[in-house]
Amino acid sequence: MKEIRVELGEHAYPIFIGGGLLDKPEIFKNCIRSKQVLVVTNDTIASLYLERTMRSLGSFTTDKVILPDGEQYKTLDVMNEIITRLLQQRYSRNCCLVALGGGVIGDITGFAAACYQRGVDYIQVPTTVLAQVDSSVGGKTAVNHKLGKNMIGAFHQPRAVITDISTLLTLHDRELQAGLAEVIKYGLIRDRKFFEWLEQNIEKLLHREIQEISYAIEVSCRNKAEVVAIDEKESGMRAILNLGHTFGHAIETGLDYKGWLHGEAVAAGMLMAADLSSRHGWLSTQDLERTRKILTRAKLPVRLPPTLTPARMLELMAVDKKARDGAMHLVLMKQLGEAFVTNQFDPEKLRATLENFSSATESR
Amino acid sequence: MKEIRVELGEHAYPIFIGGGLLDKPEIFKNCIRSKQVLVVTNDTIASLYLERTMRSLGSFTTDKVILPDGEQYKTLDVMNEIITRLLQQRYSRNCCLVALGGGVIGDITGFAAACYQRGVDYIQVPTTVLAQVDSSVGGKTAVNHKLGKNMIGAFHQPRAVITDISTLLTLHDRELQAGLAEVIKYGLIRDRKFFEWLEQNIEKLLHREIQEISYAIEVSCRNKAEVVAIDEKESGMRAILNLGHTFGHAIETGLDYKGWLHGEAVAAGMLMAADLSSRHGWLSTQDLERTRKILTRAKLPVRLPPTLTPARMLELMAVDKKARDGAMHLVLMKQLGEAFVTNQFDPEKLRATLENFSSATESR
Repeated sequence: MKEIRVELGEHAYPIFIGGGLLDKPEIFKNCIRSKQVLVVTNDTIASLYLERTMRSLGSFTTDKVILPDGEQYKTLDVMNEIITRLLQQRYSRNCCLVALGGGVIGDITGFAAACYQRGVDYIQVPTTVLAQVDSSVGGKTAVNHKLGKNMIGAFHQPRAVITDISTLLTLHDRELQAGLAEVIKYGLIRDRKFFEWLEQNIEKLLHREIQEISYAIEVSCRNKAEVVAIDEKESGMRAILNLGHTFGHAIETGLDYKGWLHGEAVAAGMLMAADLSSRHGWLSTQDLERTRKILTRAKLPVRLPPTLTPARMLELMAVDKKARDGAMHLVLMKQLGEAFVTNQFDPEKLRATLENFSSATESR
Repeated sequence: MKEIRVELGEHAYPIFIGGGLLDKPEIFKNCIRSKQVLVVTNDTIASLYLERTMRSLGSFTTDKVILPDGEQYKTLDVMNEIITRLLQQRYSRNCCLVALGGGVIGDITGFAAACYQRGVDYIQVPTTVLAQVDSSVGGKTAVNHKLGKNMIGAFHQPRAVITDISTLLTLHDRELQAGLAEVIKYGLIRDRKFFEWLEQNIEKLLHREIQEISYAIEVSCRNKAEVVAIDEKESGMRAILNLGHTFGHAIETGLDYKGWLHGEAVAAGMLMAADLSSRHGWLSTQDLERTRKILTRAKLPVRLPPTLTPARMLELMAVDKKARDGAMHLVLMKQLGEAFVTNQFDPEKLRATLENFSSATESR
């Protein structure tokens, strides 16, 4: 078992990574300082892992909330249902929530923990690659509003992240691949050595070779933990973690969150960011091609969905960025392993990038 | 104009206290670092002070949300309406909310600011004594759940508190008196000198003599600011601010939040806490009588409502404390100006106190 510390002063916490951690009561006992524990999960994960988790929590007073599976349930109303259960069962301010599942479960459970009596403990037990390398680390919690994704939320750090690698064995191929988009992201934004390692090992990850998967998740978490420690509340450098996300959010919103997974949208978005960086002369064509190649090998999409025109993408990106930052800043790349945030890009080049990725045109 | 700093490191902020501050655009300009400002208020306050406030905010891009007046609107759904307005008007992460009103408006606006895009700025502009001396200072924000008051919330400090004393001139007598309960509280828990000043000046406060009101609000804010600076998230000493509140919450819940104002319930609760302290020999009978006397002079209730029996009170207190703290801790008094938190009280004496305050019995 590996342990990575997220260094956040009084909010510091460990990430444990290993196989079979779900079946180790002592890990939960060491992380949880409460008597009352509420496990929140969804119906898909519940049938696979809930019983084992509850067994490991045998020494606590426990209860569970099982939500339906899907991003459409990441709402304020569903968060309120978690709060209702806590109040009905008289959970005190000293209780602890356990988020057992992927990013949706982690986000909504973390937000319920942030709000219940102005903040109680929670533990992340992520069961997807995406959650293990990204959403479970860093304390970003949220629910969606009908007018925008993750628009209601809080920064609330978990007490610990318990990452059981063996849960990935039940993941669908497509979800695994989508998760790898965020893994590749760490190589692109700040870890060139890791990017080169990925170039050597991407097929092993797709084949779920446990040693390589463990290593990739560990290095990803380490990168995430370092960035978060420097900039907990995303006032500056943490923004580089959003490489490809402005493009990606536009794709997700344009498709009404149907059809593409978050990681797939981010993959296409990262390549668009690389393309735009290259058009400005910030990224070499070789580095652009290496980016395209690794994403393709990971079986991730590298074009826009056919239904989204460049004009529609521009519109969606402007709305998203205006609402979020008040202006159009993008994360772009200087080279493999180095990203930066800028609003000094040429709108014509952005248009050209979008044209280039449109599935409706013949170019490229 | 007086300025008090709430010393909370990177969350430090000023409280400005004075007459006519609502009409001073420069104060708002100095406090607000955003361009987009959303004012949240209720229909009662809107008719009195909204126009003047909007005029002082003339240099910003502004919008407003006017809620119905009342504690029953302090809900997650109404909070979501504020978020909807922010999203519809494309308010960015750099926006600022202004809470213009009493405690309900401050709590719900602060919570919306805490959650919108994981946290945006807000300013408190309290217009009641209660809000000016208590709820606007310290960053406690919340909405109610149908199973419990303030059960969904966040610690989120405002950027500034702008306290315009002249807004108190339109306050109903009963609300003024209820607010004085929290003023008297600071004397009881940690400021004996202030308690003695209140014994000299309580009638002047009831008559709204501007100099005395200003002084009482300033000293109260200073006390609150000091306690909050020591214990921002109520892990210890901040709990003394809850003198009388366990009794008071039980009264409010027992009456279904109808009939008694929060400050009235707290007043009766503080005297019950003093009575219980005296029964343990912790508070002298003289100090108990001085407590009773000042509350009576402030025209605050000093008995339980006729519909609440001692048995029902005990039940309500146990539920409230179990849900909040997992155990029955109470804030009690050692002397005028010194409160402490303990679970080492005699349940029989608590029963005797409740009997003593019951309006149904003949015993005092």
